[in-house]
Amino acid sequence: MRFDIITVLPGLLESPFAHSILQRAQKKGLVEIVVHNLRDYANNKHKSVDDYPYGGGSGMVMQIEPFAACIEKLQAERTYDEVIYMTPDGSTLNQHIANTLSSAGNIMILCGHYKGIDQRIRDVFVTKEISVGDYVLSGGELPAAILVDAIARLIPGVLSDETSALSDSFQDDLLDAPIYTRPAEWRGHKVPDVLLSGHEANIAAWRDDQQLKRTRERRPDLLNE
Amino acid sequence: MRFDIITVLPGLLESPFAHSILQRAQKKGLVEIVVHNLRDYANNKHKSVDDYPYGGGSGMVMQIEPFAACIEKLQAERTYDEVIYMTPDGSTLNQHIANTLSSAGNIMILCGHYKGIDQRIRDVFVTKEISVGDYVLSGGELPAAILVDAIARLIPGVLSDETSALSDSFQDDLLDAPIYTRPAEWRGHKVPDVLLSGHEANIAAWRDDQQLKRTRERRPDLLNE
Repeated sequence: MRFDIITVLPGLLESPFAHSILQRAQKKGLVEIVVHNLRDYANNKHKSVDDYPYGGGSGMVMQIEPFAACIEKLQAERTYDEVIYMTPDGSTLNQHIANTLSSAGNIMILCGHYKGIDQRIRDVFVTKEISVGDYVLSGGELPAAILVDAIARLIPGVLSDETSALSDSFQDDLLDAPIYTRPAEWRGHKVPDVLLSGHEANIAAWRDDQQLKRTRERRPDLLNE
Repeated sequence: MRFDIITVLPGLLESPFAHSILQRAQKKGLVEIVVHNLRDYANNKHKSVDDYPYGGGSGMVMQIEPFAACIEKLQAERTYDEVIYMTPDGSTLNQHIANTLSSAGNIMILCGHYKGIDQRIRDVFVTKEISVGDYVLSGGELPAAILVDAIARLIPGVLSDETSALSDSFQDDLLDAPIYTRPAEWRGHKVPDVLLSGHEANIAAWRDDQQLKRTRERRPDLLNE
């Protein structure tokens, strides 16, 4: 699976893709992540890619032409399943969206910065608009990294232990049960007895119970009760 | 405002804090971001900080002792308004939470990795659990970067143009209106006439209209109608 990310801040995305699971996924050849500097597609000698908003107001707007040049160059090279714009007014990312996108071949991701991108880029090129949550950030770069991480870890072979991804929060619309490791007692705080019992059926029942309890307490909206 | 972030992957967080608004906020002395390597607090020569889960199952669990050592060292140096654990079963981050946290002095952020952290770290040390959204990621590092970005940009002086933050999506529970910049026409796609009219009242009315329309279409849940 290939991700092409278009941004004015390619340097910001260097370290998130160079560590841990995303690094290993690229080394294994399961994921390719290419970051493109939008300024390379600027049509002026100052490499500027933004301009004042029509109608006035604060903040700069990213121009349509550099994006069009970069997107069309990439589209001439391969077919993209989606051209995604990261934006707070997009569809809110959830595990179901991540699952669906993990079966794509090529995904292009546009990062806005400043006040955002010219609406015509969205109208003409973008096939899907995604928000990582109801909060405002400095740009679309961290959201793009979040999206790539959420998708890439679902690709078969990326996680060393695939049952790990399946038992994560949200894969069954339930939150995870509490987890513990050694020592069994720390400053008087003990691990629940059942987890030390070695009784598999009791442990499974306790975990199911805890998942339901935690979901009911913290996120009743996830339960269809 | 000071952020202390505890992680097993300090390198992953290098570039997100070294660019753009967060870089400038640190240079101006408005924000201090200190990333701590959890492995420096490991109590064994292999610097391992995780172990198998009690009760079995896949994935490794981060141990209580290294976190306790790091957290207590920091707490001996200064008082923290919050010790936040980034976790998918925490309270979902939104602009109101970001606004509230932007008035804090010192915030500590714990990043989980692998399957997560020993529940007793949460019980004993953590004052707030925050999720950036209903999806699973490889670790808490990108969520920590998201949280710092969402908070830091609200600190007075961080954004060069403060009205920009106030007019962003979510600050008034409405999504932004479409924005446009030059050229006025691109391959037949035109900027709406009203934005070229120079008539301030009409422009303001159009934008209000578009905000309401877009919010009603995309996120009716944000409207209290």
